[in-house]
Amino acid sequence: MTASAPVLAMHPLMQTLFPESPARWNWIQPSENIDATIERHGSDVEILLSASIEKLDKAMLARFPNLRMIASISAGFSNIDLEECRSRGIAVTNAPGMNSGDVADLAVTLLTSLLLRIPQSQSYIMNDQWIGKTPPLRHSLRNMPVGIVGLGSIGRDVVTRLTPFGLNLKWWGPRPKPDVDLPYVDTVKALAEECRGLIVCCRPDDSNRHLINQDILNCLGPAGVLVNVSRGSVVDESALIDALKSNRLGGAGLDVFDPEPTSSARWSGVPNVILTPHQGGSTYETLFAQAQLAQSNIENFLDGKAVHSSVL
Amino acid sequence: MTASAPVLAMHPLMQTLFPESPARWNWIQPSENIDATIERHGSDVEILLSASIEKLDKAMLARFPNLRMIASISAGFSNIDLEECRSRGIAVTNAPGMNSGDVADLAVTLLTSLLLRIPQSQSYIMNDQWIGKTPPLRHSLRNMPVGIVGLGSIGRDVVTRLTPFGLNLKWWGPRPKPDVDLPYVDTVKALAEECRGLIVCCRPDDSNRHLINQDILNCLGPAGVLVNVSRGSVVDESALIDALKSNRLGGAGLDVFDPEPTSSARWSGVPNVILTPHQGGSTYETLFAQAQLAQSNIENFLDGKAVHSSVL
Repeated sequence: MTASAPVLAMHPLMQTLFPESPARWNWIQPSENIDATIERHGSDVEILLSASIEKLDKAMLARFPNLRMIASISAGFSNIDLEECRSRGIAVTNAPGMNSGDVADLAVTLLTSLLLRIPQSQSYIMNDQWIGKTPPLRHSLRNMPVGIVGLGSIGRDVVTRLTPFGLNLKWWGPRPKPDVDLPYVDTVKALAEECRGLIVCCRPDDSNRHLINQDILNCLGPAGVLVNVSRGSVVDESALIDALKSNRLGGAGLDVFDPEPTSSARWSGVPNVILTPHQGGSTYETLFAQAQLAQSNIENFLDGKAVHSSVL
Repeated sequence: MTASAPVLAMHPLMQTLFPESPARWNWIQPSENIDATIERHGSDVEILLSASIEKLDKAMLARFPNLRMIASISAGFSNIDLEECRSRGIAVTNAPGMNSGDVADLAVTLLTSLLLRIPQSQSYIMNDQWIGKTPPLRHSLRNMPVGIVGLGSIGRDVVTRLTPFGLNLKWWGPRPKPDVDLPYVDTVKALAEECRGLIVCCRPDDSNRHLINQDILNCLGPAGVLVNVSRGSVVDESALIDALKSNRLGGAGLDVFDPEPTSSARWSGVPNVILTPHQGGSTYETLFAQAQLAQSNIENFLDGKAVHSSVL
């Protein structure tokens, strides 16, 4: 067993995720804010507990000259300068694939809400259009074509949840997958043309920035709806807002934005949207499970054993 | 084959549900409104096509002295004075169980939207609470206890759709059902005490008026949510509004109201509600299927054969 290792949580609340703090973790106690804490104790820190939200670029990492490991309690690591970590020999671990069910719950709820025209229905009542009229009919979800963009762990959990609704599910991703028993469509454009709804749940990277652009939105059309639970960068948000305002798109359900946080001014007067503040995977249950994995990674690292989920 | 029978649709749009109108149906052509049509042609009508919305009480039925049959294209028949029909020998058919999947789609969407706190999330963004803050965590749907009130065809379709979300489902109804593989809870009060969400999808009748009252809502509590896709009468709506306004209940998703149509004034300032204008089962696909069943019932009736779905 090694001596105690100084551990800094990039957000003070993260400490509460470890109710049974391991004996050899020596928590760096937070000062009035994270910047002051780093100023005071940065050179003591050997292990950093991180979420995917703090920017750990070269300049920030330079404030931790004795850093040996970054343990992220999130799946994402685009906030971390991996090149710098590699050159300095800093180990990086993450907690992947643990919130896919939670994200899928939200993606499915946004999709069915939009296909059932919930925003329009609520407006119908609150504008007293129901008085003296019979409400308009809608289409049944049964056999409605819906496309999944990206069939990773979230996409697969979406398919499981949507199957009992009897939708006609298809998917696109950069590569066909031989083990998937769902119709594959060759391009995202063809998928948009064939479908009434798209759920974007691909892994974001340089190749798919603005994958969902004006052209794709026009293919979805006035009766079509878009759900995005991937990252804001995958959708051209200005084109999306234009399409919604001009009724060239039927609705959008967004948990992610470009940039985040998004502001009310951007969405004021944009019809038929359902907006949530990037919280698809932010559940107590998942966060505690991710913390447990991070803890296990740190313990193994300190013991010189292989970690469970290594980024670097 | 009998001679042609005069058929009146209680709403002129219903005629469009029968694009291939049977040869022996002699449609009564509508006048400027239904009242004028009945005034002019009521005594000609032998067959009435009805939805469940028009009141066919003794006085209204008296305006059709030669009526032989009422074919409802809906499951409900609480609008029809069955005693009067029986005494006059008027046959009554309905179209039951055809929209249960559509209603279940809406019930499930309302439930997951409320459990995921979609109304709160949208307000969070539109009130710019996201600026400079990390959004609050929520609880995962996995293992969350949810109760179904009434396990008829809608309730069973709800269970099918909710199963992949991994909720902890239970149910209550007036009678246990030996063929149901889902935990049965003895009283609706105990169900409300044990659950974070209730979906009310029982058949409405005299015995369950205000089944969901203040006591039940208090058992659900501040974190609990209620969904009603049955009938407005099953819920004490004033008690529900009180509970929502005082945050003794976490949210409500309502497709049905008491009375209908409901007005915006009733819901203005009531937090965390999702409202839809009694359109759970109102889809084109279901309506055409119901019309086909009504047509088949009328044809059989004219041929003196047994009808498929007889109320009386």
